[in-house]
Amino acid sequence: MPALSGLSGLSAFPITPSDADGRVDAGALQRLLEPLVAAGVDSIGLLGSTGTYAYLSRDERRRAVAIAREAVGGRVPLLVGIGALRTDEAIRLAQDARAAGADAGLLAPVSYTPLTEAEVEAHFAAVAEAGGLPLVLYDNPATTHFRFTPALIGRLARRPGIVAAKCAAPAPADAAAGVAALQAAVPAGFPIGFSGDWNATEALIAGGTAWYSVAGGLFPRTCRAIVRAVEAGDTDRARTLNAELEPLWTLFRTHSSLRVVYALADILGRCCAEPPRPIRPLPPEVVAEIAATVRRMPLS
Amino acid sequence: MPALSGLSGLSAFPITPSDADGRVDAGALQRLLEPLVAAGVDSIGLLGSTGTYAYLSRDERRRAVAIAREAVGGRVPLLVGIGALRTDEAIRLAQDARAAGADAGLLAPVSYTPLTEAEVEAHFAAVAEAGGLPLVLYDNPATTHFRFTPALIGRLARRPGIVAAKCAAPAPADAAAGVAALQAAVPAGFPIGFSGDWNATEALIAGGTAWYSVAGGLFPRTCRAIVRAVEAGDTDRARTLNAELEPLWTLFRTHSSLRVVYALADILGRCCAEPPRPIRPLPPEVVAEIAATVRRMPLS
Repeated sequence: MPALSGLSGLSAFPITPSDADGRVDAGALQRLLEPLVAAGVDSIGLLGSTGTYAYLSRDERRRAVAIAREAVGGRVPLLVGIGALRTDEAIRLAQDARAAGADAGLLAPVSYTPLTEAEVEAHFAAVAEAGGLPLVLYDNPATTHFRFTPALIGRLARRPGIVAAKCAAPAPADAAAGVAALQAAVPAGFPIGFSGDWNATEALIAGGTAWYSVAGGLFPRTCRAIVRAVEAGDTDRARTLNAELEPLWTLFRTHSSLRVVYALADILGRCCAEPPRPIRPLPPEVVAEIAATVRRMPLS
Repeated sequence: MPALSGLSGLSAFPITPSDADGRVDAGALQRLLEPLVAAGVDSIGLLGSTGTYAYLSRDERRRAVAIAREAVGGRVPLLVGIGALRTDEAIRLAQDARAAGADAGLLAPVSYTPLTEAEVEAHFAAVAEAGGLPLVLYDNPATTHFRFTPALIGRLARRPGIVAAKCAAPAPADAAAGVAALQAAVPAGFPIGFSGDWNATEALIAGGTAWYSVAGGLFPRTCRAIVRAVEAGDTDRARTLNAELEPLWTLFRTHSSLRVVYALADILGRCCAEPPRPIRPLPPEVVAEIAATVRRMPLS
């Protein structure tokens, strides 16, 4: 199955440029995707949280997958965000994504009313069964406000159709214990990768199989070099490369990675989209600080 | 303006019965609304969090307002939830609600990407300006994960079109200080009411203008008696009546008020709807506990 090749290594999560009415800009999305394919990322995480999936209509999400499929042309696996507040809607989005050429779905437990563990488990089981698309469990407590326990991830990892997990990387001091606790909960070989760029390198060194990366959506070569260093067992080099990115991680932590990469896409001349309102572009003085910071950094 | 009469006293928040596909059950909604009108509640909070607004389509939300408007017939002001992740969608929902006969909109800062204060302020200003509907600021950090400061509520209270605030009631020990801090932040006379049923009585005694009540959606007379006791200055009686409801508040705190009132609507023979998936009905043993508990209580 093509998707399985995309569940390790570097997964790049680009923004989804859209206009004020929420219509996806096909040309701008293609311009963001082409460098990722050229850099040889291991997968593309389309319509992730950074890809503002929660803010786009079903039609536009379907369009985004079709645009990406055409741009990528099967050269890189496409993981596609299919999360929704309603279970039936998430099933429809999985079916749409599959029909439009996605290799796997990224399913986060989007919530308004706080959900129980049993509700999340039944939701994932229903989407895995009816959606027809292999699923990556998408743990993002900062946006969903649901916190997976290792035990729940372990139960879901044993469900047919759930093929990997994307978890929030623990703080570096807790990386070894945190990654080990997750790995102990799932069947041997079940891929667990991590997001949260500033903590990802230590999570990879601790045994994470993939880096689901916001920075990788704009700087695929730089991020891939860290992944390749870990894969080669050169942890010193991985840590050195990661330390060089600390000014970017500071910007992400201070202003949020989503808002920073919108500014960066413009600074780099890729596209000048704004995030969906009510999310707003960063003010000019912050954009100037971002531009000055990245100009001094070894990013590509 | 009719809405202004509904910004004090008891505001009753019923569930919105819908089928598995998210279609609102008109007959069931009317059966829930009629006793509220008959009991003389001061307003109805349609499509609140308990009314699962976040889980219903734009069409169904418009239908729910039209159904309620017909059932209520102008006898009670209708406050209608118009929150949405996107600013343009919230504006459309406000316009829909106004056209369908709402007296005011309830606007919560629904989020996926965590929002900044400036983003929430601009979102509220845009919806107040373009929506054409007086707005009640709807603070519900348990679902939106945004926490209003008194200062932000104070700034929004000075915006044209924002006519009241519905805040989460502080814990009883903090009621006096919490209510005073909010009142100090807004212009004199700006109505601040409270939700969080088990804390509402003390917030009313501390000067809150309204109780936005989940229990009031099923037991309007019982809840109205507490409001009337506070209005009459009889705080002893208000506290005694509230203490009698403690077993219900315990159920709300333990199983969530939304899930409990779905079970209660069935137990009382009003309707047998289930909440939108992934939210699930409570298990039979909890429903039995709820039935046994309310049978012993003075609820009407």
